[in-house]
Amino acid sequence: MVSIIITSGPTRQYLDPVRYLTNASSGRMGRALAVAAIEFGYRVTVITGPVSLNYPDNCQVVPVVTTQQMLAATQAAFETADGLIGAAAPCDYMPSFVSEQKINKTGDSLHLELLETPDIVATIGNNKKSHQWVVGFALETDDRRFRTIVKMQKKCCDLMVSNAPSAIDSEQNTIEIMDKTGQVIQTASGDKREVARSILQQIRQKLIEKNPYSAE
Amino acid sequence: MVSIIITSGPTRQYLDPVRYLTNASSGRMGRALAVAAIEFGYRVTVITGPVSLNYPDNCQVVPVVTTQQMLAATQAAFETADGLIGAAAPCDYMPSFVSEQKINKTGDSLHLELLETPDIVATIGNNKKSHQWVVGFALETDDRRFRTIVKMQKKCCDLMVSNAPSAIDSEQNTIEIMDKTGQVIQTASGDKREVARSILQQIRQKLIEKNPYSAE
Repeated sequence: MVSIIITSGPTRQYLDPVRYLTNASSGRMGRALAVAAIEFGYRVTVITGPVSLNYPDNCQVVPVVTTQQMLAATQAAFETADGLIGAAAPCDYMPSFVSEQKINKTGDSLHLELLETPDIVATIGNNKKSHQWVVGFALETDDRRFRTIVKMQKKCCDLMVSNAPSAIDSEQNTIEIMDKTGQVIQTASGDKREVARSILQQIRQKLIEKNPYSAE
Repeated sequence: MVSIIITSGPTRQYLDPVRYLTNASSGRMGRALAVAAIEFGYRVTVITGPVSLNYPDNCQVVPVVTTQQMLAATQAAFETADGLIGAAAPCDYMPSFVSEQKINKTGDSLHLELLETPDIVATIGNNKKSHQWVVGFALETDDRRFRTIVKMQKKCCDLMVSNAPSAIDSEQNTIEIMDKTGQVIQTASGDKREVARSILQQIRQKLIEKNPYSAE
């Protein structure tokens, strides 16, 4: 059975026990992909940041909080998986110092040094075995196609789904799927469940059915 | 009819169109207070940050995103209200600069200057009319009673509810209610609905029934 890992939702990077940096990712795209992948007959593991929705019963769910935790859980699950769909929006900056106590307001400004968190899709993509595939998501406000191609190369992705910030915390999404040659091979718009089915169809055609190692 | 404003949930302070600073406040304490206040026969307006729960049907709900928006909505609603319960956990720092485009990762660290956001309870407390009352919440990790008293004075609150970070995003809460003399007049622990009723009982006894201006 084809085994797919889906990362989903946001992650959090805490400054102190109360405050953190994050984004409004709801996990809806990840859940829609999980539902579609199960419909297609695949075994699904969802590695998810804190969300308020429920994933389908018939998939394994691994809850995490930080980007580092999501990376570790994804690496562990990917060992025995066929592919990864990186639909999460991991928080990509973390404070260089995390206070154990709540930072008290003093009236002065607070200077925060933010370091980049590890890139989950890039780490998996650059270390994948020859029979494994990785599909990334790119969320861009400007120069979307150009930046998506750059990200696809850097992260060693087999396909890349490009969308805009309007997708965040929405029921809807408008996407383009690009392949390694930089061509748009599919566009889809509408309810995230429909969009997820389009993505899974492309993954099946381009990555699963062509792969002699995966036994459906 | 006694009219009460309840602030609830977190607020968000965006760095760019995607990333923001926030906390894990769920709005559960605010909702429990709204339910209890309605049970007590009061008219309730909830000013809430982004949460995934629903407030009772028979209260007015004003959704906001940022701390500045929550302040403006609370000031407007407080004009004609008897009291405010500041149960929200407004994000108390905001970036000094907000990027209109998504900040792109460069491999380098990001230096962020954070400014304090306006203090909603303090602003209302320091400008309240003589018949109006304000109840604040203090969330502290250390020196809880001392810091709560300092906050009560600074914010001109009539009562202060002290709790710990364990309250955030939990069904349970453990609180102490302190009055202006610095005495603990009530402790409560358990389901937030029970805790909310204890808080409302104290508000009724200490602030509403003693107040010749409020006609219940």
